[in-house]
Amino acid sequence: MSLDVTATKPHERLAEALAPEMEAVNLMIRDRMSSEHAPRIPEVTAHLIEAGGKRLRPMLTLAAAKLCGYEGPYHIHLATTVEFIHTATLLHDDVVDESDQRRGRPTANLLWDNQSSVLVGDYLFSRSFQIMVETGSIRVLGILADASATIAEGEVLQLTAARDLTTTEDTYLKVIRGKTAALFSAATQVGAVISGADESVEKALYDYGDALGIAFQMVDDLLDYGGTEAIGKNIGDDFRERKLSLPLIKAVAKSDADEMAFWTRTIAKGKQVEGDLEAALDIMRKHGALDDTRDEALQWAAKAKACLAEVPAHDIRDMLSDIADYVVARIS
Amino acid sequence: MSLDVTATKPHERLAEALAPEMEAVNLMIRDRMSSEHAPRIPEVTAHLIEAGGKRLRPMLTLAAAKLCGYEGPYHIHLATTVEFIHTATLLHDDVVDESDQRRGRPTANLLWDNQSSVLVGDYLFSRSFQIMVETGSIRVLGILADASATIAEGEVLQLTAARDLTTTEDTYLKVIRGKTAALFSAATQVGAVISGADESVEKALYDYGDALGIAFQMVDDLLDYGGTEAIGKNIGDDFRERKLSLPLIKAVAKSDADEMAFWTRTIAKGKQVEGDLEAALDIMRKHGALDDTRDEALQWAAKAKACLAEVPAHDIRDMLSDIADYVVARIS
Repeated sequence: MSLDVTATKPHERLAEALAPEMEAVNLMIRDRMSSEHAPRIPEVTAHLIEAGGKRLRPMLTLAAAKLCGYEGPYHIHLATTVEFIHTATLLHDDVVDESDQRRGRPTANLLWDNQSSVLVGDYLFSRSFQIMVETGSIRVLGILADASATIAEGEVLQLTAARDLTTTEDTYLKVIRGKTAALFSAATQVGAVISGADESVEKALYDYGDALGIAFQMVDDLLDYGGTEAIGKNIGDDFRERKLSLPLIKAVAKSDADEMAFWTRTIAKGKQVEGDLEAALDIMRKHGALDDTRDEALQWAAKAKACLAEVPAHDIRDMLSDIADYVVARIS
Repeated sequence: MSLDVTATKPHERLAEALAPEMEAVNLMIRDRMSSEHAPRIPEVTAHLIEAGGKRLRPMLTLAAAKLCGYEGPYHIHLATTVEFIHTATLLHDDVVDESDQRRGRPTANLLWDNQSSVLVGDYLFSRSFQIMVETGSIRVLGILADASATIAEGEVLQLTAARDLTTTEDTYLKVIRGKTAALFSAATQVGAVISGADESVEKALYDYGDALGIAFQMVDDLLDYGGTEAIGKNIGDDFRERKLSLPLIKAVAKSDADEMAFWTRTIAKGKQVEGDLEAALDIMRKHGALDDTRDEALQWAAKAKACLAEVPAHDIRDMLSDIADYVVARIS
């Protein structure tokens, strides 16, 4: 590898390798988010979709198809579909979480209203199925319908587990498999399916997406507490929203009676006062909850890389391996 | 026809003729609304689905399949799918409209929260696509994905047209084709498609569902102003929510300057005071807006019946014809 290649970030290298395909995906996104009758739809969609997300999920689909040697046109459709499902869930998430910021900009529910976010999300979700239908592949439809159901189930589970101090790591894993990993694994799997890849390759790419998605979400949840070191800014959202994410679950499991009283007040009852976040972080550090979360995230990233052993050698395969490192780079 | 048959209502006769199939649909609904991980999902779904709606939409699918001579198992799947899509849209509608009553009971968003309504709606929507996939029919998936997109588009259009006094009857028709007729016409069409019916029969059943759905919504919108005669109870929701439904659009079109000032204050600006609903009704009656809406609804019901001429003679066909009369019975 030459110096100028290693100087760029893994997802930028992948984006470069897939540039013509991503260009086609961006064109299809713009084309299909339009609505003849309701101009509010492309307005809301454009606000979110053009805010400069990394497009990691559609890139995973394109990458999987490319390394499986796909030569047809439908990887573009599937990547578009994956991005539409992702955008629909973001719109609905922001309503559910009553968020006012996303990707550094005001959320759609703040700029327009909750109604628009709910309905435009529904529209994009329907649109994604329309685009899938064009591929003519019932298997692909089944995989993405399953993923969509798993996403919604994970979100509901997260909602009902919030504030519940008895939430286990097992439940946490189900939540993040739903809300995050299901779309990662479906994204890579459909790339393999549309290419007619061997079952072992399809499974390896599914497992890669699953492990990558889990690592991705664990990193997100760790960074919400500022990572393992210095306290960054904008941390503590999960604490304030009383979400039982992995660092908190790990800390609760090792807490003594006084610490449990603290969690009961701040999380179960939601009576938070100034200084509570710092106190929570002290308890987490004392029990190694942040370090343990970090270790688990690194293990999932390593697992993602290991899955790629089953996939044929290819430049793109190496980039996917680097993506797994990249996802955990902010905490390692 | 014997007296005891004519004594029952058309939708009850249809339900009786389709009793074994509806039983299978109800079983499948209960089976598929479950969730291994998130018990909140069946709780919310059951609240709505067991509140005793008439199940008109799934019955339309079963009726279409039966009169096309279908003998396979998938009409049950499709009827379940149609009811799930309908239930998902009701859950989201109640969030969008901030409703507190549905079918005479508190809404799910009131009993649980908006979050649950949004996410359980998403789950049911995904579930409906999973069930469609089981039929193996890409055409059916395409029809229902199109219908879902049209529903969401109609809802967004209704949202952006609210409070806008320049809304035309043409826009109104687009809104109700989306929010109501799209699922009626898809329900009847997929019954024909799964049966391998002739194109002319499929089109006739599609057109029947479309006209029936339009008549159904116009009746609903007329009854929201108490129908053409006495003022009932619970009327005026659309007026208070400033929705541009047909009676209002027709009245606005014929209003003089004073009346326009009234609409501008009450609808465009939303400054409503005691007695405004009665004043609105007076203007509507003066311009014949309620009678004209009634006439249009009756015309669409007649159109629905006329479409059935293209469909083979069958007991069920006669019942569908009676359903069209039944839908407008409350206003004729």
